[in-house]
Amino acid sequence: MIKVGIVGGTGYTGVELLRILAVHPEVSVSCITSRSEAGMPVADMYPNLRGHYDLAFSEPDVKTLAACDLVFFATPHGVAMRMMPELMAAGARVVDLSADFRLKDLDVWASWYGMPHESPEWAEKAVYGLPEVVREEIRTAQLVANPGCYPTAVQLGFLPLLESGLVDPSRLIADAKSGASGAGRQGKIGMLHGEVGESFKAYGASGHRHLPEIRQGLSQACGSEVGVTFVPHLIPMIRGIEATLYAELRDPADFDRLQTLYEERFRDEPFVDVMPFGSHPETRSVRGANSCRMALHRQEQSNIVIVSSVIDNLVKGAAGQAVQNMNIMFALPETMGLEAPALLP
Amino acid sequence: MIKVGIVGGTGYTGVELLRILAVHPEVSVSCITSRSEAGMPVADMYPNLRGHYDLAFSEPDVKTLAACDLVFFATPHGVAMRMMPELMAAGARVVDLSADFRLKDLDVWASWYGMPHESPEWAEKAVYGLPEVVREEIRTAQLVANPGCYPTAVQLGFLPLLESGLVDPSRLIADAKSGASGAGRQGKIGMLHGEVGESFKAYGASGHRHLPEIRQGLSQACGSEVGVTFVPHLIPMIRGIEATLYAELRDPADFDRLQTLYEERFRDEPFVDVMPFGSHPETRSVRGANSCRMALHRQEQSNIVIVSSVIDNLVKGAAGQAVQNMNIMFALPETMGLEAPALLP
Amino acid sequence: MIKVGIVGGTGYTGVELLRILAVHPEVSVSCITSRSEAGMPVADMYPNLRGHYDLAFSEPDVKTLAACDLVFFATPHGVAMRMMPELMAAGARVVDLSADFRLKDLDVWASWYGMPHESPEWAEKAVYGLPEVVREEIRTAQLVANPGCYPTAVQLGFLPLLESGLVDPSRLIADAKSGASGAGRQGKIGMLHGEVGESFKAYGASGHRHLPEIRQGLSQACGSEVGVTFVPHLIPMIRGIEATLYAELRDPADFDRLQTLYEERFRDEPFVDVMPFGSHPETRSVRGANSCRMALHRQEQSNIVIVSSVIDNLVKGAAGQAVQNMNIMFALPETMGLEAPALLP
Amino acid sequence: MIKVGIVGGTGYTGVELLRILAVHPEVSVSCITSRSEAGMPVADMYPNLRGHYDLAFSEPDVKTLAACDLVFFATPHGVAMRMMPELMAAGARVVDLSADFRLKDLDVWASWYGMPHESPEWAEKAVYGLPEVVREEIRTAQLVANPGCYPTAVQLGFLPLLESGLVDPSRLIADAKSGASGAGRQGKIGMLHGEVGESFKAYGASGHRHLPEIRQGLSQACGSEVGVTFVPHLIPMIRGIEATLYAELRDPADFDRLQTLYEERFRDEPFVDVMPFGSHPETRSVRGANSCRMALHRQEQSNIVIVSSVIDNLVKGAAGQAVQNMNIMFALPETMGLEAPALLP
Repeated sequence: MIKVGIVGGTGYTGVELLRILAVHPEVSVSCITSRSEAGMPVADMYPNLRGHYDLAFSEPDVKTLAACDLVFFATPHGVAMRMMPELMAAGARVVDLSADFRLKDLDVWASWYGMPHESPEWAEKAVYGLPEVVREEIRTAQLVANPGCYPTAVQLGFLPLLESGLVDPSRLIADAKSGASGAGRQGKIGMLHGEVGESFKAYGASGHRHLPEIRQGLSQACGSEVGVTFVPHLIPMIRGIEATLYAELRDPADFDRLQTLYEERFRDEPFVDVMPFGSHPETRSVRGANSCRMALHRQEQSNIVIVSSVIDNLVKGAAGQAVQNMNIMFALPETMGLEAPALLP
Repeated sequence: MIKVGIVGGTGYTGVELLRILAVHPEVSVSCITSRSEAGMPVADMYPNLRGHYDLAFSEPDVKTLAACDLVFFATPHGVAMRMMPELMAAGARVVDLSADFRLKDLDVWASWYGMPHESPEWAEKAVYGLPEVVREEIRTAQLVANPGCYPTAVQLGFLPLLESGLVDPSRLIADAKSGASGAGRQGKIGMLHGEVGESFKAYGASGHRHLPEIRQGLSQACGSEVGVTFVPHLIPMIRGIEATLYAELRDPADFDRLQTLYEERFRDEPFVDVMPFGSHPETRSVRGANSCRMALHRQEQSNIVIVSSVIDNLVKGAAGQAVQNMNIMFALPETMGLEAPALLP
Repeated sequence: MIKVGIVGGTGYTGVELLRILAVHPEVSVSCITSRSEAGMPVADMYPNLRGHYDLAFSEPDVKTLAACDLVFFATPHGVAMRMMPELMAAGARVVDLSADFRLKDLDVWASWYGMPHESPEWAEKAVYGLPEVVREEIRTAQLVANPGCYPTAVQLGFLPLLESGLVDPSRLIADAKSGASGAGRQGKIGMLHGEVGESFKAYGASGHRHLPEIRQGLSQACGSEVGVTFVPHLIPMIRGIEATLYAELRDPADFDRLQTLYEERFRDEPFVDVMPFGSHPETRSVRGANSCRMALHRQEQSNIVIVSSVIDNLVKGAAGQAVQNMNIMFALPETMGLEAPALLP
Repeated sequence: MIKVGIVGGTGYTGVELLRILAVHPEVSVSCITSRSEAGMPVADMYPNLRGHYDLAFSEPDVKTLAACDLVFFATPHGVAMRMMPELMAAGARVVDLSADFRLKDLDVWASWYGMPHESPEWAEKAVYGLPEVVREEIRTAQLVANPGCYPTAVQLGFLPLLESGLVDPSRLIADAKSGASGAGRQGKIGMLHGEVGESFKAYGASGHRHLPEIRQGLSQACGSEVGVTFVPHLIPMIRGIEATLYAELRDPADFDRLQTLYEERFRDEPFVDVMPFGSHPETRSVRGANSCRMALHRQEQSNIVIVSSVIDNLVKGAAGQAVQNMNIMFALPETMGLEAPALLP
């Protein structure tokens, strides 16, 4: 049994980790921390966990965490980077669901997150944990930076096009939409049901923190700096991200081989599902599941490739991918604990 | 492995059975029928099942069904009763999720369902499968009538009060509310998103088919005919039922022992959770889970007992309870395949 | 033109007053106050008002307010009662949408609102502004206490039964449900979209502040103290209240005259619509409109009268009723500015 | 008073016309037709209209319709084109909300709508009624083809860029999202609440009927054939469209003058609101209102112009724009009957 600790368990990614790990046959959660709720049983805050956990939230303590086989950070940015040097020195292995270790360029990190990075050493050593790209490095990583939700949906959808060099990398557009759980569980007026319900809008259209993460990943896939426009939107629902991606094919004749290209690229990936050409993936088809479904489209004789890619932002976009990374790090079957189909309807 | 057949798999209870059984370690689904969709792979209709089932819908055939260890009926009323005599004669065991075998008084059945009952013999032999009441009879039953969704939430909530004789059985009120999936998956204008969304209403307030089923169950618990008023309402959401129950305590002093009464009544029930006095169960705390959560309330010095009871109408109110019944019938651990926590948020 | 001031305009009842008054031909809004947002144009906070108002929020100032013909209070409880003596002395007329002046028994008020009442004089003089009950007193009132949202839906639905003495007043049950806007526009975690969406629950089931207000109104209608149980619920939608009311008819034979009783009681009421017997009013049929629709039901030969009553909590349950009261106070046609049909779908 | 007839009044655009016209001071609706519902009072189908209309649906009759000053068609495609020659010959004036007269190239029309066009003469004479483009021609038009919902949001958002020639017209992308009411009021399984709720998806991504309409309008604005990719999506809500538009500026230096360009282009337009640069228009800010709000964005030093444009698909995208066209045709103030602010929240 892998002894797991969770830092910052009161948010939506925290409860989602607990939900998934509750049925993972090789994991036992031994501690879950929250400064503000220390002492409260997790099942009092999250009644869906009644009968599944006896655990209460506790004060974060490096020694207790270091005694775990694996620690998940489900904290706001800025927390993990401060605790990491001590935790790493103590030999802990970590999957960090926050944004602290996702960017390699720390000046870019500092400008988007509004503070200097406090753990440059581990920012360099951290493995950006998108298993479909760097599975081998994850196996032995001490620190895995779990990708952001939008970046997961956008990168997976663009990967085959960029790796193959078939599209113009300077003209990528990612129009992405997310349910409200992506904003976390904090008492912000803008996220009230009365504000979010029955409405739709873009946000962060002039620049969003996931833009540099997307650009870093796509540039790596492409081998050169990409030009990408990324506009997120807020959907009046709880879970799910859909990203519609647009890229310009250098040679329109290549349209004929795109479906095969995608199917082959993801043939052995247990959590990426390339649907038939012309399909429309629905976010509900991945609700609660660690899956990314995608499909390709073409309009008339256009040279624009359209990819629609969907994930559950809390699962393949956060806690599920974190558990997938844990499975890889501990040489367990990659799908262990992640087999259940999505909840539909 | 239990070889399972499903009759009528295109509706919401059909896909929910498939979702639950996909991770049941002792079940293999060998056929799923649909006259209208014969030949279509189930994963084409329900993309959440892609990668989980290779099965296609097939024409219903008694011989094939009789070769299964267990057959679930997820059909509209009127279908199961016609196939049952032949299927029973062939030795099949059945859990019927439809309304065909729930009522013992077939005149009442005929008047609410608008047709004569065609299988009186099996209507008599069928066991009304509310495990919390008749677990022992379910073990050996050949035909189990799976309870309706509202009747499950209402009966479980009232049971301790009626079995103990503490309340006036002539003055029971059940104000119940359900998500839209309860109406099934048919192209009715009244169930369009544009009609159901952002609105709330009562329906069937002058009489609903679940009223006689509720009355039958409560009368049995009480030992005499009860007087119950049942008003269902439609909630602009997909899954979930909440029933607020009102009963008049004969002796207000008994209020002090109600919480203990409930906790003891359901102490050994794996799927009934009595929350602390004064709690407010949320439907999302049971979304996707085979659980009924309930809590008791009292206002000032009133003698009115208030019980709030929640289930997922498609799980404890349909497919989950059906699998629970199957587990009992086949002497499996009752919780097998039903252990995952609810999907929250 | 009536010169109107609004105190506390940043909440949902504030913006709703502005929305309604924007097309009222006899009103000009001359000031709207908010301590926290002073200086901000109202259209910056509420973009639906762009092009309708040039006004900015200002610091509340008694002198400025006293110069208005009418002042609406759309404040949390406790604010209006402190400003009222000075404002009344200055000769202002006020419609208070908060709870400060709704209860006549100030001990009861103090125990539910957790503070002593600071303006007993005006609590006594205030007219409880349910026009269908006390229209004549409203005409000349200096201070009108605008009824709460739940109390409006519940009282209107019960009125004919209690005024006529046909039902047992000791056994009233009001099972009420409200959209999330009823909780106001404050950054509470429990009201996030991620918490409210796709879920349903009771709240305040052991006692809610609207209970004493409901009891006061019903007792007055009945001429003696009533026994009423009131359980509110939270619907995953924004606007709308539905209350299902249960009462026990003394003589079941009276069922035959109930529909006529209701129709005659409300014949001249412009904002109460008695639908045909057995109808199911939908909250969307009153969305944005100052209307209460209701319908009666009976189940089989039961002696329980069922009334389903719907309003928009922000309109007939708050701002619309306040404008209706203003129209009465200023001898305008009662429906002025309130004529538009509800927004459906 | 303008005597108005409505053909095909049972759908969402029909009831929306009735809602808007109920408070229009210069209109009296004299007939509303529906073959399937002839005889039924409109207020029985749409309870929000109780008290506003005594009218019942009637069989469509050319003579009766020709006696109206104006006839609105709110029918599926294929109906208006068959009745138009006779109606035009009788001298009627018409605003057709269907797709029948929107496209000038009838081969294109035939290929997208799957039938030959039966009224080429009137297809040529019809004025495509986007008032912001062809107001003068609308004044005297006998037949106005009311624009589609997506085309309204997309064209208005792109217009200044194309008219000014500042962007590359061969690389336009319109990623558009709509609430479910856009699909009309027909009993389709795919539009059930259980299917649409809590999910998001693209649809028609390989080609949608609004694509040729958008291309026609943009090409006209630009003076040459444009290359536009248009992907619609379904939002789990009822009303509202958001379109995020992407275009490539020929000269990035022009970014500085875009805001002024937009503000000047729409300065005198009562129903187009250019919000401050970097704003995020919400669909709820136009719910129920005949308004298009838009805002511009730029990401870092990119040469991609981003425009977010929102409308209510049933108002500025259908019935509201139709009434606006009627006002223009009858020399009434263009905003008459369309002044009320949007319903927010």
